[in-house]
This record gives sequence, structure tokens and C-alpha cells, in this order.
Amino acid sequence: MSSYKFVISLLLYCFVCYSQNTDTIDVYYYQSIVNKIINYGLQEGKAYEMLEELTSIGPRLSGSIESWKAIKWAEKKMLTLGFENVHIQPVTVPHWIRGQVEEAYIVNGKEKLSICALGGSIATSDGGIIAEVIEVRSIEELQQKKEQAKGKIIFWNRHMDKSKFNQGSAYGEAAFQRTQGAIEAARVGGLASISRSLTTAYDDVPHTGVMYYNDSLPKVPAAAISTKSADYLSQKLKNDSHLKVYLKLTCQTLPDTISANVIGEIRGTEKPEEIIVLGGHIDSWDKGTGAHDDGAGCVHVIEALRILKDLNLRPKRTIRAVMFINEENGLRGGNAYAENLLKSEKHIFALESDAGGFTPRGFGITADSITFEKIRKLESFLKTIDVDRISKGGGGVDISPLGKLGVPTAGLRVDGHKYFDYHHSDNDTVDKVHPRELELGAIEIAIFVYLISELGL
Amino acid sequence: MSSYKFVISLLLYCFVCYSQNTDTIDVYYYQSIVNKIINYGLQEGKAYEMLEELTSIGPRLSGSIESWKAIKWAEKKMLTLGFENVHIQPVTVPHWIRGQVEEAYIVNGKEKLSICALGGSIATSDGGIIAEVIEVRSIEELQQKKEQAKGKIIFWNRHMDKSKFNQGSAYGEAAFQRTQGAIEAARVGGLASISRSLTTAYDDVPHTGVMYYNDSLPKVPAAAISTKSADYLSQKLKNDSHLKVYLKLTCQTLPDTISANVIGEIRGTEKPEEIIVLGGHIDSWDKGTGAHDDGAGCVHVIEALRILKDLNLRPKRTIRAVMFINEENGLRGGNAYAENLLKSEKHIFALESDAGGFTPRGFGITADSITFEKIRKLESFLKTIDVDRISKGGGGVDISPLGKLGVPTAGLRVDGHKYFDYHHSDNDTVDKVHPRELELGAIEIAIFVYLISELGL
Repeated sequence: MSSYKFVISLLLYCFVCYSQNTDTIDVYYYQSIVNKIINYGLQEGKAYEMLEELTSIGPRLSGSIESWKAIKWAEKKMLTLGFENVHIQPVTVPHWIRGQVEEAYIVNGKEKLSICALGGSIATSDGGIIAEVIEVRSIEELQQKKEQAKGKIIFWNRHMDKSKFNQGSAYGEAAFQRTQGAIEAARVGGLASISRSLTTAYDDVPHTGVMYYNDSLPKVPAAAISTKSADYLSQKLKNDSHLKVYLKLTCQTLPDTISANVIGEIRGTEKPEEIIVLGGHIDSWDKGTGAHDDGAGCVHVIEALRILKDLNLRPKRTIRAVMFINEENGLRGGNAYAENLLKSEKHIFALESDAGGFTPRGFGITADSITFEKIRKLESFLKTIDVDRISKGGGGVDISPLGKLGVPTAGLRVDGHKYFDYHHSDNDTVDKVHPRELELGAIEIAIFVYLISELGL
Repeated sequence: MSSYKFVISLLLYCFVCYSQNTDTIDVYYYQSIVNKIINYGLQEGKAYEMLEELTSIGPRLSGSIESWKAIKWAEKKMLTLGFENVHIQPVTVPHWIRGQVEEAYIVNGKEKLSICALGGSIATSDGGIIAEVIEVRSIEELQQKKEQAKGKIIFWNRHMDKSKFNQGSAYGEAAFQRTQGAIEAARVGGLASISRSLTTAYDDVPHTGVMYYNDSLPKVPAAAISTKSADYLSQKLKNDSHLKVYLKLTCQTLPDTISANVIGEIRGTEKPEEIIVLGGHIDSWDKGTGAHDDGAGCVHVIEALRILKDLNLRPKRTIRAVMFINEENGLRGGNAYAENLLKSEKHIFALESDAGGFTPRGFGITADSITFEKIRKLESFLKTIDVDRISKGGGGVDISPLGKLGVPTAGLRVDGHKYFDYHHSDNDTVDKVHPRELELGAIEIAIFVYLISELGL
């Protein structure tokens, strides 16, 4: 082929690529709107102020009075901001409560261990448990030691792998000890399960989270132990493998109770029947005040809509904020939303922010390849604030029932190196959130969903 | 053109692009080294530990005893780690000291204003200054009000523009009030200059920094005022434009003194005469302990070399760490390095980390377009830890003399939304640095300079 023909075909190729990116998008017009959203959000942002209000209520575990106060706060906030169709959707939720007492120490010397009950755990008997301890790092190891494990407290001491860049993946690998620890302990005749906190922090703060039982096995109490106490206990066991630990928990599961999702929206002007859902979860664990998990997500989505409304950017399609209840220990809110509303409405896209209020980076997307490529075309707009990482795979627990029904889903991606320092612990408080980083998440969401609403999928 | 020919030419085009990217790079080999650096750094990182050591010395303003202790710390650290050619390079530096007294209040009511002297300021007279205040936001505004300004304290109250995504640019726009405030105050017959702290934080902490005098004008004392005190004073002035402020500073400039750059390296195996410089600055301001500015940069470069050394990744070219002295108020270290060593050595690349110890993002590069494109080819390796933002324009103050002599320069880019909260203030302490985020900066530098050393420029 002559170089002349090569040049022509190259030019043609470039032109085709360019046309694909811009044929339906008025780049300059939308870039000017993107700039407006950024400047307004950074100058007049309310995300942090809202997060301070929300977290001042306290932790918001499903079924608690505080969770109900938070629901009413979100409803009132959306009404005050002038959102449309503001209402709550009743949802029945589990109701577990932490007891007044959660205590552990090494019997010899009464050396305190920093622990907390895992969410869903039964209590110990009133007198607590006193037993020897067996330390393991995997289910396989426990299986190998099952003869020695009988009648003991199973101490899971699997570290999160800090050599992994992706700490979400390190968390996933180590999470079995929290979620399955009590089941596996019961399977070998153990009396209780104590698992190393799933955290990157090295301190005396235990991290709670959901745990499960298997109905065909006995239920044993389950607690998390701080990373420092875990190391201390491990060291002590090296010197004395017969040392005994005392454990007492007074937590309990009450009957299911009534709670709610909170919903508000901006109706679309041209295709109001096409719904874009923005989700955060209004419940949190009962440690800290759920600032990153997921107060940040809640105010991200309220703030995104507030920015669009204040700038009179009326979207073509309906953009709806949903504060889901019961993400942490049941997914009842997400299921209820999908069951009730999908019957009558057309959901074209669902996005969840549940990765914390850190500097945003982009989105993870779960969608067919055509939809994914359409979304990818928005990268250039997102680049303005360095949030153009659009990658495959993403969503959120609460919107996963929508995903299963075929709705494309997205999850906000953030700079999460500190996330597991705070997650599910007393450390998750509003002072760990930076106002500007938080606001940028709301701005990113506002830009993204406004463009999707304008351009369709 | 037939579609057949189009497809062929397209394939050819793709092949050409691909070859350009990979012809000289064994992708799989280098990716395995990159992975090794990442895993080792994250698992066995020492950056934070070193930063704790360095900052425990205290603030390290040029000429201070602490700066000398820091120089000796860096020298010993490099020797202990087995770096080669470790030595200090004497540099004469300015020696300004903050006085025991820096005080300001509104005379009526003795309401305290939170201020600190700017670096380089003269003292007030022993009795301090008592004068009326004129508030301005720009040099133009002061010029317009010059008749009123005579005999008064000039109060510069220019906010950093928070609506800007790039806070470095907002800082640049507002910095004149600190650097030029005393000159412009003297030009209109003002008695002193008080300028709003250059920060994104809203608190009672003043932020210092360098200021200049013009030898043909009188010298007047110059201070920074915290953002909260600035707003308070501004509000008070609205009610009483004749209110008087008392200001006393006892700072002074001592004779120049002797100090040093600290240098250590890993000699190249194939082209040791080709030098790659990694720079941080060992001096800091005398507020806080210079953890982000620029303790982080110092440990970034020491740690990058330590990682390469520990992994036995002997580079082809020489990689040299230089802790420059006197970045903050003189650039004497950077100038001395360039003057002395460029005569006899060939520097092929210089990189500086002086943007703080936050999560890294990539590099800004100042180089000719061919070199820039060569560097851009390393993006795929950097993507592994999300630091592949390679953009045009970047370097560092200390390596700018090298840049002027034609050496390509680079500056580490980080997630800097919090940077100006801490910068040059009591807030810049090691607890504001996250171990994992800090380590990632060192890892990024290690990967980048190792590849440049292997592949050349």
C-alpha cells in the first residue's frame, strides 16, 4: 500500500473515532455545564454541613431510634430542598442490639482485650465463657486442628494482606473469619469465635460487621478483637498455649421492626418515566457515627440533586435519590425497593455511593458492553476534576437487586487507602471526612447523572 | 477505498502504534519487577517510620540547629542503608529567626488576633505598632486607596478561590499578598503588612511563608493572620473603620550561616556517569514539623532507593537522592548543587517530591516532546497502582536550576486537596500523613526511576 493511501486511511480512521465520540454530544455546551457544576459545588457546597447534621444523630443501626431519626432527617432535608415526590417506603428490618456489656480478658492477670460483639451475635451466658483458646488463620487450618479446637474459643487471626494495592480485595480475602467464624467454630465444637478486626489500622479499636449462623449448627457468640489485642493475645499464646480467656457479651436480637427507605427526586422534563436511581444507605453500624459508611453516600446523592436543582439544570429523565435502609445487616431496603417499584417503573441506571467520602476517582460500571462504551464516552467531561477512571465492574449492595433485574449499575470509586482504618468502628466519625473531598464526590455524581439523563443510555 | 483496504490499513496502523510502545521494552519482565516493588513496598515499607524520626527533630528552618540535626540524620540514614557516595555538600544559607513575641490585637477590647511573622520579616520596634487598618484584596485596590493607606497597617484579605479545582493555582493567585504585601505597603507609606493566611482551612492557625522586600523602599514588618481572625477583623472594620490594631514582632535576620545538601546514591552498573536525581528538601518552615512540606519528599526519595537496594535492583544508570537545603527561603541548596556538580557530571533526569505525602497520582514533566513521549510510554506500568497521570509541566523549586540547564524535570503529583490546610503552619505534623499513602509515593518513584534508569531517555 502506498504511503498516500495509508495516510488517507489513517485520517479516515481518526475521523471515524472522533465522530463516534462526538456525534450526539455537543461537547462545548455540556462542558460549560460541567464547569458550572464544579464551580458551584466547590464554592457553595453543602455536603459536609449535611454530613455533620446526619452524624450528629449518632450511629444508625437498622431498627434503632437513631435510624428512624435519620430517616426523618433525610425526608425533611429533601422536602426543604424542594425535591419532588418525597416519601418514605416502609420496610421491615432486623433489630439486633449491642448489650451493655462486652468484655474479654486473659484470665491469668485479667489483662483486658479490646473486643466488640459482631452484628447478629447471640449473647454469652450471664456468667460469660471461660475457655482455652486456639489460634487459626484459615478454615483449613481449623479443620486440621479440629480435635484440639473442641471446647475452646476459636481465635481467628488472619491479617488483611497489606501488600495488595487493592485493599477491598484484601478485605474480601480476610472477611470469612468475621462472616463465617461462628459457623466454623460451631462445626468443630468451639464455644465462641473471636476474629481479628478487618482493618488496616493498628490500634485498640475493634471493628464490627455482619456475621452469620447456620441453622443446622449450634449458635456460638462472635466478637471482633482489635489488631493490637489480637497481636498481644497471639504473643501470649506462644508462651502459654493453655491460657484461658474470659468473654462476655450481652447483645440480643429483638423481633423485626418497621423502618423505611427514603425517596425523593427531580422529575425529568422529556422522559420522566425513565428513572436514574442514586443510592446511599441511611443505616450504619452502631460504632462511630457512620460518617464514611455511609453518611457520605447519603449526602453525596442529596447534594448531587441539590446542585442540579440550584443551578436550574432540570434533567430530561427523572433522577431519584434513595436512602436505603438495612444495607449493613439484611439488604431489606434494597430488596423492598426493587420489588415494589420495578413493577411499575422503568429504571435505566442505578448508581450507589458506598465507598466513603474520600477524593473520588471515577466509577466502576456493571453493564453490557454497548452501554459501558456509551458511558465511557463521558470520560472527557469527568477528566476536568480527575474522576475519569471508568472501569468494568461496580455497583453497590443496595442496588444489586436492580442489577439482577438487568438495570446497569455503577459504584462511586474513591481514593480508599484509609477506608478500612475507619470502617465499622468507633473511628468512623465526621472529623475523618474532608469537606472538599466529600463535596467532589457529590459533584462527580451530579455531572455524571446529569449527562446520562441528557444523553440516555 | 474499499472496506478491505481500510481494514488492512487500520490493522497496520494499530501494529505501528503497538510496535512503538513495545519495541524496546520487555513488558512482562518489567511488569514483574514493578509488581515486586509494589508488594515489597506495601509490605515492608519504612517511609512512615523514617518520617516519624525526621519530624521528631522538630521544624528545620535553614540555619537552625534542627536543620543541622536533620542533615546529619539524613546522612546517617543513607549510610546505614548502604547507599554509596554519601556526603554532604556545604551551602551558605540565610538565617532568619522568629522572635519570642509575635502578637496582635484590636486595641479597643484587647481582642486577640491569631498571627505569625512571615519568613524574612523585620521586627517591629520594641513598643510595637499601634495604627488604624485598611483592608484591601488586591494591589490595584491598594493603589486606588493609597491616600487613605498612609500611616496605616495594610490588611490584605484575599481569599484563596475555593471554586477552583486546582488549589495550587488558587494559591498562586493569592500569594502576592504574602510575598509582595510588605513592598506594596511600604510603597503607599503603610506601617506594616498583615495578610490573610494562604490556606483552605478555616481555623485559628496562621500560615507563614517567604516574603520579600524591595531595597529601594522602606522595610515594614509583615505577618500572616489566620482565616478566622481575618474574617473577624474584617467584620469589626465594617462596624468601625477607625479601629486600631496593635502588632508586635521580634523576629530577626542573623548573618548567613553554613549548612548543607545531603547526597547519596546507587551507582549505575552500565552507565554510572548518567545521573538521575531524586530530590526533596530537608529544610522546612519553623511552624509544625514540616511533615508534608517536605519531610514526605525526603523520605519518599530515601525510601525509593532503599526499596531498589533491598530488592537487589541494581540500576543501569546512577540514581541519586539529594536532600536540598533552603528551598523555603532562598534556593541556595538547589543553586549550589547545580553549579558544582553539573560541571563534571551528566544529569539525564531530575525528579522532585515536594507536594506532600498524600496518595500519589502521577508526574508532571517538563521536557522536550520526544523525551515526554518516551516517558509517557511508562504509563502502563504506573497504572498498576493508579499513578499513571503523566502530564506536561512539572518539576520542583530545588531542581529548577537543573531544568534551566536543560535537564528534563518531573514533579510528583499527589491528591492534594488537603495540602493547603497544613502548608507552612502548626498543622503540618506527622499525624496528618497516612503511612500507606506516603509509602505509595515512594513506590511510584522507585518504579518510575528504575524504569528510566533501565530504558534511558
